[in-house]
Amino acid sequence: MTIHPFDQALQLEAAGSDRPDTWLGHSSPDYWNMVGPFGGTTAATALRAILLHPALLGEPIALTVNYAAAMAEGPFAVTAKPVRTNRSTQHWTVELSQADTSGAEGVVMTATAVTAARRETWNVNDTPMPSVRFSDSSARLRFSASAWTNRYDLRPVRGAIPQVWDGSGQGGEEGSLTQLWVRDEPPRPLDFASLAAMADVFYPRVWLRRATRVPAGTVSITTYFHADSRQLAQSGMGHLFGQAKAQAFRNGFFDQTAQLWNEAGALLATSSQIVYYKE
Amino acid sequence: MTIHPFDQALQLEAAGSDRPDTWLGHSSPDYWNMVGPFGGTTAATALRAILLHPALLGEPIALTVNYAAAMAEGPFAVTAKPVRTNRSTQHWTVELSQADTSGAEGVVMTATAVTAARRETWNVNDTPMPSVRFSDSSARLRFSASAWTNRYDLRPVRGAIPQVWDGSGQGGEEGSLTQLWVRDEPPRPLDFASLAAMADVFYPRVWLRRATRVPAGTVSITTYFHADSRQLAQSGMGHLFGQAKAQAFRNGFFDQTAQLWNEAGALLATSSQIVYYKE
Repeated sequence: MTIHPFDQALQLEAAGSDRPDTWLGHSSPDYWNMVGPFGGTTAATALRAILLHPALLGEPIALTVNYAAAMAEGPFAVTAKPVRTNRSTQHWTVELSQADTSGAEGVVMTATAVTAARRETWNVNDTPMPSVRFSDSSARLRFSASAWTNRYDLRPVRGAIPQVWDGSGQGGEEGSLTQLWVRDEPPRPLDFASLAAMADVFYPRVWLRRATRVPAGTVSITTYFHADSRQLAQSGMGHLFGQAKAQAFRNGFFDQTAQLWNEAGALLATSSQIVYYKE
Repeated sequence: MTIHPFDQALQLEAAGSDRPDTWLGHSSPDYWNMVGPFGGTTAATALRAILLHPALLGEPIALTVNYAAAMAEGPFAVTAKPVRTNRSTQHWTVELSQADTSGAEGVVMTATAVTAARRETWNVNDTPMPSVRFSDSSARLRFSASAWTNRYDLRPVRGAIPQVWDGSGQGGEEGSLTQLWVRDEPPRPLDFASLAAMADVFYPRVWLRRATRVPAGTVSITTYFHADSRQLAQSGMGHLFGQAKAQAFRNGFFDQTAQLWNEAGALLATSSQIVYYKE
């Protein structure tokens, strides 16, 4: 049995008994972006270090990942510390470091997370999935410059990546809105790590809004997990429906908010990120 | 000249030359909530520790604050470390700790932040302020159990706190929407710290959605700053217009997203948080 490329990318090995919170990994060519790994994989790696930890309490509720520097190809170390454990919640800090060309270790990613033992309560989904069918989607989105786009079956319903970079971006309330279906390619059963990665599959909103491909990169992403592992298992290997939209573009940074539902219409995760852009 | 209660609450003193990243503070009775300080003040304290740091580069872009444990009345220590400084961005980790009743130090808050030197670029606000006037607002919102509500002039336009807790919460797309005008009381010129605090003035959405006052508390809040200090100065001591809305309530946690505009309609900050609730 071959290992799925996503699991391959997320392989972590314990650093040893003298560093009990630290795991060692290696960047994956399968999820390479233009100048570093796909940020979704990096976020998933932070989460995986937490999920591997023997002291883990409960399941992920919140994850914030800050991209401090471009990650290089090669090995890295990721440290996840449970800094506070309460009766039903646990708080984590995570740091990913890598040696630079001179051999000095530097922090390339920081993260915080909250895990919790969830209990059944009154529930309501206040953000229904837009009424679209998979058949409404267009041709698969992928771009050769970014290997990671081959590792997802991305099917835009609206707001596909511009075909012509002529500066004719749409204005109005939905000028930066993308809606799409997404699943791993090849298919893989959904789990917290893959859901964390999928929260970052939306290409920079500034490209859509301006139809201009300026340099852009995520600085920080926060994802909230509304689903528990049982609900993720129910989602199986089906497509998720996702949408993302910017709220404001100002002096080098814009934000984008996102939602991910499973095919049955359950809102599994909500996310927001702040993105650097040039010009 | 008397010091404003918000500045009083945020007073920090350098811990000494052997702990150059650490400041000492004290909880404020003026911003007390039901079982601890108003979370907005705690978020502002994290940001203030960064803004005081001699190594600071630029201005705040993103701030994530995790409430790890209930803060007690009394002194605390807050440590802000610049973990990575790039050419135009800087990444921070923050920890706030407090002695428990046995005298042992424990982490009660963790945070991460990004600051940046911003440059003028193409700009657009894709989230216009709803067209409401200050005169549309209703009587001032305050509740005696929470001292901090006296420190804000909060004027709900819609989604005021329920007067009757009869379980008759509204459903539908806008069932959890609150819109309000807000400024410090007494008035105080807007800055990053007060903006960070105001991102948390929206009472728990579950109270509005259900018209049931279940125990609830913020677990993690993320705020993105779209404005720079010049734009904040232009906002002066005027009211901001804010709105907040939940996306999903599931097994003990719900999220809420928020936007804050100044009176001139500039979107100053966007925010999201995940909140614990019981039952």
